[in-house]
Amino acid sequence: MNILVLGGDGYLGWPTALYLSRKGHKVGVVDNFARRGYDLEMGVDTLVPIVGLQQRVRRWQEVSGNEIDVFVGDLTDADFVSSTLASFEPDTVVHFAEQRSAPYSMIDRKHAVYTQVNNVVGTLNLVYAIAEQNRDIHLVKLGTMGEYGTPNIDIEEGYIEITHQGRTDLLPYPKQPGSFYHLSKVHDSHNIMFACRIWGIRATDLNQGIVYGHETEETSLHPDLATRFDYDGVFGTVLNRFCVQAVTGHPITVYGAGGQTRGMLNILDTLACVELACENPAERGEFRVFNQFTESFSVQQMADMVAAEYSGPVTIEHPPTPRVEKEEHYYRAAHTKLLDLGLVPHLLTSSVIRSLLSVCEQHKDKVDPAAILPTVDWRSTSSSLVTAGSHGAGAPDVGESASAEVG
Amino acid sequence: MNILVLGGDGYLGWPTALYLSRKGHKVGVVDNFARRGYDLEMGVDTLVPIVGLQQRVRRWQEVSGNEIDVFVGDLTDADFVSSTLASFEPDTVVHFAEQRSAPYSMIDRKHAVYTQVNNVVGTLNLVYAIAEQNRDIHLVKLGTMGEYGTPNIDIEEGYIEITHQGRTDLLPYPKQPGSFYHLSKVHDSHNIMFACRIWGIRATDLNQGIVYGHETEETSLHPDLATRFDYDGVFGTVLNRFCVQAVTGHPITVYGAGGQTRGMLNILDTLACVELACENPAERGEFRVFNQFTESFSVQQMADMVAAEYSGPVTIEHPPTPRVEKEEHYYRAAHTKLLDLGLVPHLLTSSVIRSLLSVCEQHKDKVDPAAILPTVDWRSTSSSLVTAGSHGAGAPDVGESASAEVG
Repeated sequence: MNILVLGGDGYLGWPTALYLSRKGHKVGVVDNFARRGYDLEMGVDTLVPIVGLQQRVRRWQEVSGNEIDVFVGDLTDADFVSSTLASFEPDTVVHFAEQRSAPYSMIDRKHAVYTQVNNVVGTLNLVYAIAEQNRDIHLVKLGTMGEYGTPNIDIEEGYIEITHQGRTDLLPYPKQPGSFYHLSKVHDSHNIMFACRIWGIRATDLNQGIVYGHETEETSLHPDLATRFDYDGVFGTVLNRFCVQAVTGHPITVYGAGGQTRGMLNILDTLACVELACENPAERGEFRVFNQFTESFSVQQMADMVAAEYSGPVTIEHPPTPRVEKEEHYYRAAHTKLLDLGLVPHLLTSSVIRSLLSVCEQHKDKVDPAAILPTVDWRSTSSSLVTAGSHGAGAPDVGESASAEVG
Repeated sequence: MNILVLGGDGYLGWPTALYLSRKGHKVGVVDNFARRGYDLEMGVDTLVPIVGLQQRVRRWQEVSGNEIDVFVGDLTDADFVSSTLASFEPDTVVHFAEQRSAPYSMIDRKHAVYTQVNNVVGTLNLVYAIAEQNRDIHLVKLGTMGEYGTPNIDIEEGYIEITHQGRTDLLPYPKQPGSFYHLSKVHDSHNIMFACRIWGIRATDLNQGIVYGHETEETSLHPDLATRFDYDGVFGTVLNRFCVQAVTGHPITVYGAGGQTRGMLNILDTLACVELACENPAERGEFRVFNQFTESFSVQQMADMVAAEYSGPVTIEHPPTPRVEKEEHYYRAAHTKLLDLGLVPHLLTSSVIRSLLSVCEQHKDKVDPAAILPTVDWRSTSSSLVTAGSHGAGAPDVGESASAEVG
């Protein structure tokens, strides 16, 4: 199968590309290096070093014998999207290529507008290119469990049957996202659902939980094949941050009460889920939604697990949450569709946490403690980025310049 | 009350500005003349002549003695939004300033992207400016009944109580919009709901039905105060089109089966509803949704009413619908909140239809029959605009140039 991985230079895109390449698919990778640009803007860096995309791809060819095609460009450039699809002729497009940090989208107006325009326009250009060139192409789109928010009823997979005043219909599940980033994914979901309806294209929306883990079978074959490990306050995810805090002797910071509960999954399961979606495509005209996570944990539970596994002394602190979110809430979300397709989950065991701690231990000299703390306040319209030490132009304003130009 | 009317040069914005001015409010009008630019792009024109904004405003001062402030600029220009709010100091912002044609948004990729970026970014800039300057400002935002689509259950006003597996929550009503334009309004609704939640600002989303009618007490005071009357296939609404077809001796074209049912309201009720929303603001932090229509009709019913009222011979034809839509469906939508605030509806009586027919009769020499027929096909990714006779660049591509620059 020809599979084009958009955002194939990122934390998940890169290991996904390697995994699918090893499985015998013809893989192409598209990236504009926006993710590396955000690091430069924020003055932070991946804890585990990564090499350039072309260097990674060459190393992969040496190690595996498999070629990966590279397309450098921006999805908000419609001509680039169109020519890339025409050249690569994908059967499946796996779309990771969006700004994916909630705090980044909440920095200020420019970052909110950038995030929504970048994500929504890139995806619109993509569905138009698919509709124009080949309506059989299967779009596998990364969404997020954060689209649903924390309703007081069970979360279903994309749709919910509602009986109201004696009548019943199956309707899109109501969305209550918690940042301008999460909102951009909700906008995408609505746009893609409509594109499937009017053009008969096929799409799978993977509403993914928070991913943890760093190594895959493929990335561990050579240091040049490593993927990113982010622990900073803007792009780092919670489990990474807790491990870095533990090994550097800083208190683990659980924001607020710590009852915030989220779906989680191992990076190995991300690869398996994407593969399952590719190999079992949606029908023509179908907008299919899978909730892509394997377990749910509260933030407090995660902190307790890290503290239990770390060999040294650990303290846990509870500063106020910088987000506007419920700190205690009901949370139960369906996630059976990928299991039905054959997913065998890798759960968050003690050994997984110990391996994350070991990665942090190995690179602890590189940790910048100033990068860890939250710098973005949901209640403010303009957060100063204290870690960066710089106050540059940041994300471009689409009212003033092209969104395509961001790093 | 200081009321700023965004899109105050348009079909509804202009009469709303006059109405609120006459009621004693201090009114400011913001416009970038995008709506007049679409006419030039499409090669069509309002059937009833309108004069320039500054000329209209001067005439209004002569007729009424009331001044209206004029701000010319684009909402996608954040500095313009910010400086306009700082200068006018509104208590209420009434936001009509969006690209509002479903067919226009469906012409091709550029027009879809333009519509979503223009509408979403303009509204984001607005909520940021409100949050930065004065969180007491009440945002009265024009949405559309088309956000809901045509579910097989009753439509409620913005929220629905869902009981699911033994638990109950009040959640945003699921949305199934039918064009990239309608989608842009859904995106706005989600963004504004979130802004109310995180910043405690106050907003009322007026999910408006299809508006008919041409004259208001204020616009009829002088020909220079007239508002637009659109009958073309892209910006004209169904009742106007049917009246123009009747008086020019063309068959009334009901697309498909004609069972498509929509909420409708008289232009006089638009003014009254906006006034009721302004005078009864949402609470701080509240995202309030009113369904703003007074009656529902199927397209076939509207055609039959026009045929019954027109004095001459009328035929009704049923060409295929250019949209992807259900041609027969359940439709029942709540609309009690504005009635509860005191709205006294002006219904679609015989005399209202006769007055519309009379407007068309008066200007029938100006009718361009080629402009009436549908030129935009929902199933195609690129519709040729046969009425325009031109194939120019059209809406700018945000990937290539600034969205702020469209006419």
